[in-house]
Amino acid sequence: MTTTSSPHSHPLDEALQLAPSPSAAAGQYEGHTHAGYWNMVGPFGGITAAALLRALMQHPDRLGDPLSLTVNYAGALAAGPFAVQAVPVRTNRSTQHWTLSILQADAEGAQVVTTTATAVTAVRRETWSVGDVPMPVVPPPTEHKAIVAPQGAVEWLRRYEMRPIAGFVPRTWDGSGDHSLTQLWMRDAPERPLDFCALAALADVFFPRVWLRRARQVPAGTVSITVYFHAGAAQLQETGTGYLLGQARGQEFRNGFFDQTVQLWNEAGTMLATSHQIVYYKE
Amino acid sequence: MTTTSSPHSHPLDEALQLAPSPSAAAGQYEGHTHAGYWNMVGPFGGITAAALLRALMQHPDRLGDPLSLTVNYAGALAAGPFAVQAVPVRTNRSTQHWTLSILQADAEGAQVVTTTATAVTAVRRETWSVGDVPMPVVPPPTEHKAIVAPQGAVEWLRRYEMRPIAGFVPRTWDGSGDHSLTQLWMRDAPERPLDFCALAALADVFFPRVWLRRARQVPAGTVSITVYFHAGAAQLQETGTGYLLGQARGQEFRNGFFDQTVQLWNEAGTMLATSHQIVYYKE
Repeated sequence: MTTTSSPHSHPLDEALQLAPSPSAAAGQYEGHTHAGYWNMVGPFGGITAAALLRALMQHPDRLGDPLSLTVNYAGALAAGPFAVQAVPVRTNRSTQHWTLSILQADAEGAQVVTTTATAVTAVRRETWSVGDVPMPVVPPPTEHKAIVAPQGAVEWLRRYEMRPIAGFVPRTWDGSGDHSLTQLWMRDAPERPLDFCALAALADVFFPRVWLRRARQVPAGTVSITVYFHAGAAQLQETGTGYLLGQARGQEFRNGFFDQTVQLWNEAGTMLATSHQIVYYKE
Repeated sequence: MTTTSSPHSHPLDEALQLAPSPSAAAGQYEGHTHAGYWNMVGPFGGITAAALLRALMQHPDRLGDPLSLTVNYAGALAAGPFAVQAVPVRTNRSTQHWTLSILQADAEGAQVVTTTATAVTAVRRETWSVGDVPMPVVPPPTEHKAIVAPQGAVEWLRRYEMRPIAGFVPRTWDGSGDHSLTQLWMRDAPERPLDFCALAALADVFFPRVWLRRARQVPAGTVSITVYFHAGAAQLQETGTGYLLGQARGQEFRNGFFDQTVQLWNEAGTMLATSHQIVYYKE
C-alpha cells in the first residue's frame, strides 16, 4: 500500500490509513509507517496504539465504542508497510472482546509479530457517574508557552502542541531529580477534532519518567500500555480541538522497568481517559 | 481432568493445577474450576488471572519472570473443566511476549473463548531503583481485626485473610459514600509463601469501588485487569507468608464503567505490584 497524502489531510489521518487486505477475511488491514510520527528506532508508540484502534474502529462487526486497549510492543516496526489483524473473539450483549496484532515482513520476508494487543468495546448507557480524581487547578493553556522541538529532536514531537505546566524534561542531566510528576496542556498539531484514536495516542506522549526522576537520560522504551476510555462520543465532541490536560507519574522504578500512571482531562475538567504503562530503562 | 486434592495441599495450588493437554502442542493445558474460589456467577477473577499466569510459568519455553499481565473477562467460566492456551509469540533477548486464552465447552459442546490475555516476561538485572509511591504509614496487621465472611458470602472471600484499615465495605447502603479509597492488610488463607500467581490474584481482591463510592450495592464485575510485577524472586522470598498492604482507589465512574488503581506493598514497604482494572457497574 502506498500512503496517499493530500495537502488537506491531517498527518494523523495519513498515519492511520488502513486498507482492507485484498482477498482476505474481514479484520485484515494494510498500513504504512509515517515519517511524521517517527521516534528513535521505530514509530512513536502512541501512533502504533492508534493504528490498532483504527483497525478495530473500521471493522464491519464492531459493537460499541472503545472501553479498554492494551498494546504490547514486542519489536520495533521498520519503516514501511505493515499488516494489522483485528479479531472480535467474543461478542456479548453490550461488550465485545478483541485480539489484535501487527505483523511485518522481516529481512527474509517472513511475517513476524511486532505488536500484540487486546481491546474491549462497549455499548454504554447513561448511568450515575462521578469523577473521583478532580483535574488539578492549573493556569489555562494560553498562559503556558508551547515547546519548540529542538533541531535533531525526534520527528513525532512536532505532531503535538505541548504546553508544559510542571515537571518537563530536565534542562541539565545532573542526577538531581526528586519526583516523577509531569503536567502539560497538549493537543494534536495542527489542531484536529479529538477522536478515540487521537486520544489513545495522546495517552503516550509523556517522555520517560525515569529521565525526570533521575535527571539522567538513559535509554527507555514502552513495553506495554493500557488505555481506559472514559469519554464517549459526547465528551469527544465537547472537547473538539481543545487542549487536554495530561498528568503522568511513575510509581515504582525497579531493576530495569518502571510503571507510569496517566490521567487526561479536557479543558472543562472532564476525565477522558486514564492510562498506565510499563517501561524498560537501562542501568 | 479431575482435581486431585490432598489434605496437605493449599487451595490455591489445587485451583491452579494445570495438566499439559495430551497429544497437544506445548502451551495447551487443562484445568478445572475450584469451588473454594467461587464468586457469584463464576470463579473469582483473581484466580482466573492466576491460572493464566500459571500456564505461562509452566511453559517449557518461558524466558524470565512475569513483568505484565492483562486479562480480559469475556464471559463467565462455568463450574467444570477448562482449557488454557499460552503462546510465546515473540522472544527477544531479555523479554518475551505472550498471548493467552481460556476456552470452555458451551452447552452444545463447542469450545468458546471465556478469557483473553497478554503477558510479558522479562529477564531482569539489578539497576538503579527507587519507589516513588511510599507505602502509607498505617498500624501493623496485628492491630487490625481480620474480617469474618458472613454466612451466605461468596466462597472465595474465605480464601483470604483480610484486615481492613480504611474504606471497607459500607455497613449501611444509604447512598452516603464520598470516596473510593480502601486500604487493607491481606494474605492467602491459610498462609502460603507468596509467588507470582498468588500476587496476581491478590491484585484483584478489592470489592467494587462503586459500592464504596456510592454506599450502594449495585451489580458490578471486572472487564479487564492489568498487573505490573515489580517484585522479582528476591522480593517474593523476602515477603514469604507475610501480609501485603493493598490500596485501591477509583478514578472515574462513567456510564456503566469505572477504573480502579491498586498498589501492593509487603510489610517491609517494598512495592510488589501495581494494578489497574476497568469494571462494569449497573445503573
